Amino acid sequence: MSRKEIRLNAFNMNCVSHINHGLWTHPRDRSQDYTDIAYWTGLARLLERGKFDGLFLADIVGVYDVYQGNTDLTLRETIQLPVNDPMMLVSAMAAVTEHLGFGITANLSYEAPFLFARRMSTLDHLSKGRVGWNIVTGYLDSAARAMGLHEQLEHDQRYDRADEFMDVVYKLWEGSWEDGAVLRDRARRIYADPAKVHKIAHHGDYYHVEGIHLSEPSRQRTPVLYQAGSSGRGQAFGARHAECVFISSQSKDATRKLVQSIRDGAVREGRDPEAIKIFMGLTVVTGRTEQEAQDRYREYASYASPEAGLAHFSAGTGIDFSRYDLDEPIRPAKTNAIESLTKTVTQPESNWTKRKLLQQLELGGRYASIVGAPDRIADELESWVADTGIDGYNLTRTVTPESFEDFVDLVIPVLQERGSYKREYAQGSLREKLFQRAATLPQEHVGAGFRRTAAVEHA
Amino acid sequence: MSRKEIRLNAFNMNCVSHINHGLWTHPRDRSQDYTDIAYWTGLARLLERGKFDGLFLADIVGVYDVYQGNTDLTLRETIQLPVNDPMMLVSAMAAVTEHLGFGITANLSYEAPFLFARRMSTLDHLSKGRVGWNIVTGYLDSAARAMGLHEQLEHDQRYDRADEFMDVVYKLWEGSWEDGAVLRDRARRIYADPAKVHKIAHHGDYYHVEGIHLSEPSRQRTPVLYQAGSSGRGQAFGARHAECVFISSQSKDATRKLVQSIRDGAVREGRDPEAIKIFMGLTVVTGRTEQEAQDRYREYASYASPEAGLAHFSAGTGIDFSRYDLDEPIRPAKTNAIESLTKTVTQPESNWTKRKLLQQLELGGRYASIVGAPDRIADELESWVADTGIDGYNLTRTVTPESFEDFVDLVIPVLQERGSYKREYAQGSLREKLFQRAATLPQEHVGAGFRRTAAVEHA
Repeated sequence: MSRKEIRLNAFNMNCVSHINHGLWTHPRDRSQDYTDIAYWTGLARLLERGKFDGLFLADIVGVYDVYQGNTDLTLRETIQLPVNDPMMLVSAMAAVTEHLGFGITANLSYEAPFLFARRMSTLDHLSKGRVGWNIVTGYLDSAARAMGLHEQLEHDQRYDRADEFMDVVYKLWEGSWEDGAVLRDRARRIYADPAKVHKIAHHGDYYHVEGIHLSEPSRQRTPVLYQAGSSGRGQAFGARHAECVFISSQSKDATRKLVQSIRDGAVREGRDPEAIKIFMGLTVVTGRTEQEAQDRYREYASYASPEAGLAHFSAGTGIDFSRYDLDEPIRPAKTNAIESLTKTVTQPESNWTKRKLLQQLELGGRYASIVGAPDRIADELESWVADTGIDGYNLTRTVTPESFEDFVDLVIPVLQERGSYKREYAQGSLREKLFQRAATLPQEHVGAGFRRTAAVEHA
Repeated sequence: MSRKEIRLNAFNMNCVSHINHGLWTHPRDRSQDYTDIAYWTGLARLLERGKFDGLFLADIVGVYDVYQGNTDLTLRETIQLPVNDPMMLVSAMAAVTEHLGFGITANLSYEAPFLFARRMSTLDHLSKGRVGWNIVTGYLDSAARAMGLHEQLEHDQRYDRADEFMDVVYKLWEGSWEDGAVLRDRARRIYADPAKVHKIAHHGDYYHVEGIHLSEPSRQRTPVLYQAGSSGRGQAFGARHAECVFISSQSKDATRKLVQSIRDGAVREGRDPEAIKIFMGLTVVTGRTEQEAQDRYREYASYASPEAGLAHFSAGTGIDFSRYDLDEPIRPAKTNAIESLTKTVTQPESNWTKRKLLQQLELGGRYASIVGAPDRIADELESWVADTGIDGYNLTRTVTPESFEDFVDLVIPVLQERGSYKREYAQGSLREKLFQRAATLPQEHVGAGFRRTAAVEHA
């Protein structure tokens, strides 16, 4: 491949309206079929035909109730509510594909590590090593209440707990069953060698776990680790654990700085700066010609709901934008709200108004968007990679599956022709495909350190 | 159908050695392929070809460490260890079948009701209403330690908590989204009507949950509820909640009494005595002729491990049988161990010795077994149903999938010919198929009471 290979995930969620809100009302949109397995197996086949690296499945626990102080618009515009469990989709899609990876979002704050580790191991087995885990810690008080807690842990404390959660699952995935423990020897009647299977023990501030990991080692052991934290503490967590990072940005300058900061973070953790693949959220609208793409954009926009996009953004920032006049400067009270707002709009927050935000939300979503004929899309995709150092994109869906079909049929061939996109999948597990290294965590990754020392007690 | 219709589940588990231990060493046994999706989709297709009502998937959290005080034999003979998550299998199997039900075991003691309810709703959506839940509360201290607890809750307290867990999930499944809440109205931009979606609130002794159920209503709302409790408190729980009960017995007399007791329990709860379908665990070995069946039995038995069956039974009873001489009377210290032992062997425990137990475990498992040509098997299946009042069987696997293939190819046609087994599936969800009633819980079921009154707060 002559140029840097562009990596692509399709970005989706087990719900109707994911990022580009309002488009569920478009007559050709099929997102209401999300409860039908055929919708998902069809998508998986389409993405594999387009040689996508993965399907990135978002998730949320809780509801968006900040905008107007209730969930009325959330329900009417189905803003990630209802939302079904993403893990339940994977085996059906894995059964009809051979190469496509699955990046599954799971909020560790509400999972028991012992059972969560088994679920991921099971999916890694069933997919023959094609599973990734997008690690999130959650941010909604509505989720905390649903889980029986008065409110969230404070932000940095959530990440402290997350670090400890990671220690537990590394012990289970990496430390409980040694390589060579599973013999499957019918003649000698030894399925597993007891001397090579270990009870792990973890007694920390947040978790107490003693036991043998219930699953034998899967191809990757630890799934490929995705993360999207943007705060300082979130980035520190990502620098330590993440193998793929998902970012959101509107300008090349800001993106370049963010990419450099992420790679510097990896180096500080003793890792290769290229050990983290960086994916940028992006919305693409294309057509056979420039005119067709622009027409399509306008037609899509006529169904989009910028207000629903704003309501979604209210939940993310904690700012009830319904209380602002269109041209009133938005001055959030909370620091994390400013950070979130500033990161998204990449301007000092004092310049921002609801009118400007709504303009950015013309297609109902707040990711950067590009519109044009396939050549122009390819130009943009290549130039962002070349100019900012990102590795690829998480592509949102607009009208689905049409927007993914257009991308696969129109844009992928152009990228392949130019030599910036693979014509065939690499062999092996998701980690092998992404990094051209082993199926399991590289030696310098923190998780690899749990391979032996964690095995504290012979079972 | 001229005679009482026999109901059939295949009994299986996401692991190598399930009930009939040792047979994983048989040259034709494919249970080591349990990590391969094709093993499961192939099984699902086979069972649907045989018009099985369901695939009943067992599960265990924890390991068997009572026998010899360690897990050495458990690992060598792979006695339900390793064991992968059963829920992850369902979407792949649902995608290749149209009618087969899925009874999924999940231990509520270690689940968060808010997220568990979403997982089951997701699977009920994806399977178009074919999901059942086998409710278990667990019995292993090794599981409690893995989950960060010092030990199990005391037995009856586990069931108190289980009752409260059920209240929470009924509220979510039945009470959060009214019928008619989901409009999917593109023109009016109303996916769901906020006036018909309710935040549930539960503040009890064990659980605190406030929130809208994340999933819109699935076809059955509440999955078909399976249960297998045999203690007094367990049976009381089943009488209140269960729609299918799984029993284990060796004699018709004991079975008849148990069946009567289960149906009496349902009546005490204001339910129809036939509102509970009763399935008995059974091992069948058949062949085209009586001789072939007997030969097959002997061949299977030569690979079985009665000792592994005993080790499994040790975990269930808490009795370390390795400490007993072959002819020493077994006198367990704990009451629940006596209950468990007595129930299984259906004799006063004082008569029992390890030698007698091992004889019962000739095929490695402790369920009743019948061996013979298809006609003889059909005779037995019919006579147990007629004489005891059970509805059908949970069929264990021996050499897999061979034993299910033999049953489907040889026994099912005989039963169909006699009019005691369906030739075609009924239409609709699993609950409709089993009970010829509505897809959702009947009005007299305790869960139906949560349909309105639980909706305490407008979201």
